[in-house]
This record gives sequence, structure tokens and C-alpha cells, in this order.
Amino acid sequence: MISVEFLFDYASPYSFLANESLGAKLPGVEIDYRPVYLRGFESFAKTIPFTAPKLAYMILDLRRCAADLGLELRVPNSFPINGLFALRGALAAKRAGRFAAYHRAIFEATWQRGRDISTKDAVAALATELGFPEVASALDDASIKDELRANTESAIKRGAFGLPTFFVGAEMFWGHDRMDQVAREATRAAAS
Amino acid sequence: MISVEFLFDYASPYSFLANESLGAKLPGVEIDYRPVYLRGFESFAKTIPFTAPKLAYMILDLRRCAADLGLELRVPNSFPINGLFALRGALAAKRAGRFAAYHRAIFEATWQRGRDISTKDAVAALATELGFPEVASALDDASIKDELRANTESAIKRGAFGLPTFFVGAEMFWGHDRMDQVAREATRAAAS
Repeated sequence: MISVEFLFDYASPYSFLANESLGAKLPGVEIDYRPVYLRGFESFAKTIPFTAPKLAYMILDLRRCAADLGLELRVPNSFPINGLFALRGALAAKRAGRFAAYHRAIFEATWQRGRDISTKDAVAALATELGFPEVASALDDASIKDELRANTESAIKRGAFGLPTFFVGAEMFWGHDRMDQVAREATRAAAS
Repeated sequence: MISVEFLFDYASPYSFLANESLGAKLPGVEIDYRPVYLRGFESFAKTIPFTAPKLAYMILDLRRCAADLGLELRVPNSFPINGLFALRGALAAKRAGRFAAYHRAIFEATWQRGRDISTKDAVAALATELGFPEVASALDDASIKDELRANTESAIKRGAFGLPTFFVGAEMFWGHDRMDQVAREATRAAAS
């Protein structure tokens, strides 16, 4: 079976939309989830702070794209947010064998319930509340920090500059709105 | 019949893709073509020069999206380019009652034949070659400069920050990849 790499950040609402679309757009495809720190990308850092008209449109676009998926999306008052600690949490959850549940819970808390994830304390409290105390206590582990940094550096080396990003082999795709292209490439790769 | 405003710049390859998609995505919809100067937008100006990975991906994405439409797209060696004079030409062509032919010819020359449009001389020569001498001689007309400036300022006042942009009444949409949303809004507006 073909595997598709899905590079995401919990701070990225378009990553949330992509995550929600995986089942419909890539049925039967094995997803390799890669937590990556969006603010580590020079191209993204250059865009923040968003200009006022871009920010206003982005919020509108996110709501429209979420509605197209039958979802409500809540944009936090302080946006853009920072996914660093929630991403470290994902790596801690993976080590504990609980990645899938953590991943779903954090994305939902952030983008459907408007929960803050921008600080270590906020993520630790949220993880504890959601039933992941082993994550809450691992947010400063050196090896977890290193793993996230390595993920991000590897993504940059392979050409990534924003999130969500997909890789099908060496072929890169950026954006939840390119998932039809990802699906076609995955089908092509599986047949070859 | 409902009318949709299509704000474009000849320098914008995604505007070219949107223009090529109008018939398929918005059949039976009256299109109000609005030449707008992309470099007049603060949000766009902030993105140039594009970072190397973003530029590399954009070229790949443009080719993929063009292929999805059954088109070949040629990205000029010096990209991004400047649409100022070609846009002034569109306003001159409109006054001469020859907008549709000029519009098609300039988009095609720029994005399918790799012709340079970044200087006044280049646009004047291209317009003459394509059979629009009245355009070539009007590229510095004060009233044409004013009209393009007014188009761009009006777009900014209404919230635009990139191109292509569509307006269905007051509802704004950005990007050739949001044309399905434009079509749905146009259908909704026509029915209400």
C-alpha cells in the first residue's frame, strides 16, 4: 500500500481542514503523520503578522472551507497562534502509543472549541484535561525537542515552506486545496 | 442575470488559470473584467521577492494546475513579472471596443508563449505585433493611468489583497482554486 506523508502543525487551521479531509480525499491510503513547526519556515515567518485584509479574508475563507466539509471552525482571538508545545506533545503521545487519540483531541480543542495552545502551560493543562498526563510532563524533554527540530529541518531540506504539506515519494504538494492532486499522485504511484 | 467581478493582473499566472476556467466554472455568468495592479497590494508586495522554496513550488503548482485544465503554461525566466503596462493596455483596448481580443491575446502571449510584458516598450511592441496599435500608443495616457490606479484603490478599499479576486456583490473570493465557491455564491445570489 502506498503511504502519504502529511506534514502539519496544530497552529495551522488549514492543517486542521486537511486532517478532517484525509478519509474522504485519501481513502485506503496509509497516512504518515509528521508534526512540523510552521514558524520554523522562513516563507511563513515572512508572512506574519498577516496584513489586515489578508487576515480578514483568511478567517472568512477558513469558515467557508470548513462549511464545505460540514464543520464549524472557531478562529481564536489571538491568531496566528503558536503550535510548538502541542507539536512536542504529539511526539510524546507517539512514544506513549497514543498519537491518534491525542492528535484528534488537540486539533478539535484548538479549531472547534477555541482552546489556547500557544504556551507550554496551556498545552500541559489541556493535555492533562484530555487525559494525556504523560504528554503534559514531557513537553521539555530534550529528545522530543530534537525530534521536532529534525522533522522541521528535514521538511525544509525537502522543499517545504508552508503547511499542510504532503509528500508522495519525492512529489510535494502544499495546501488542503491540493488534496485532489495528492490523491491522483498516490493512485499513480500505487499503480507504477 | 447575475454578474461576477473578476479582478486580474496579466502578471499573475493564477489570474491566467482563472481566466481559462471562467467558461467551465461560471457558465452563463456575466463576467465584469477589472484590470487591477497586483503590485499595488501591500500583502503581495510583502511576498516579493519570493523565497526560493516558495518560488520553486509555485512553478511546479502552476504547471500542475495548468495540466489539470489541459493547458501548458510557460513561466518566464524573470518571474515574478510586472503587469503595469499590459493592464493599462487593457483599459485602452476597452475604450477602443477591443477588450476581449486584447485580453485573450495578452494572456496567451504571456503565459503560453513566454513573451515579456514587464516594460512599456515590450508591451507596446507586443500590442503592435498582435494588431493593437491604438493600445501601443495609449500606454502613457494620463486618464488611463488614473483609471488603473482607481481600480486598484477601489479593490483595496473593498478588501482585496491578492489576485485573482472575485466579487459576487460584496462577497469576496481569492484564488483560481476558490471558483467553485464563487459559482455557488453566484447561483445563490441569482436565486435570491
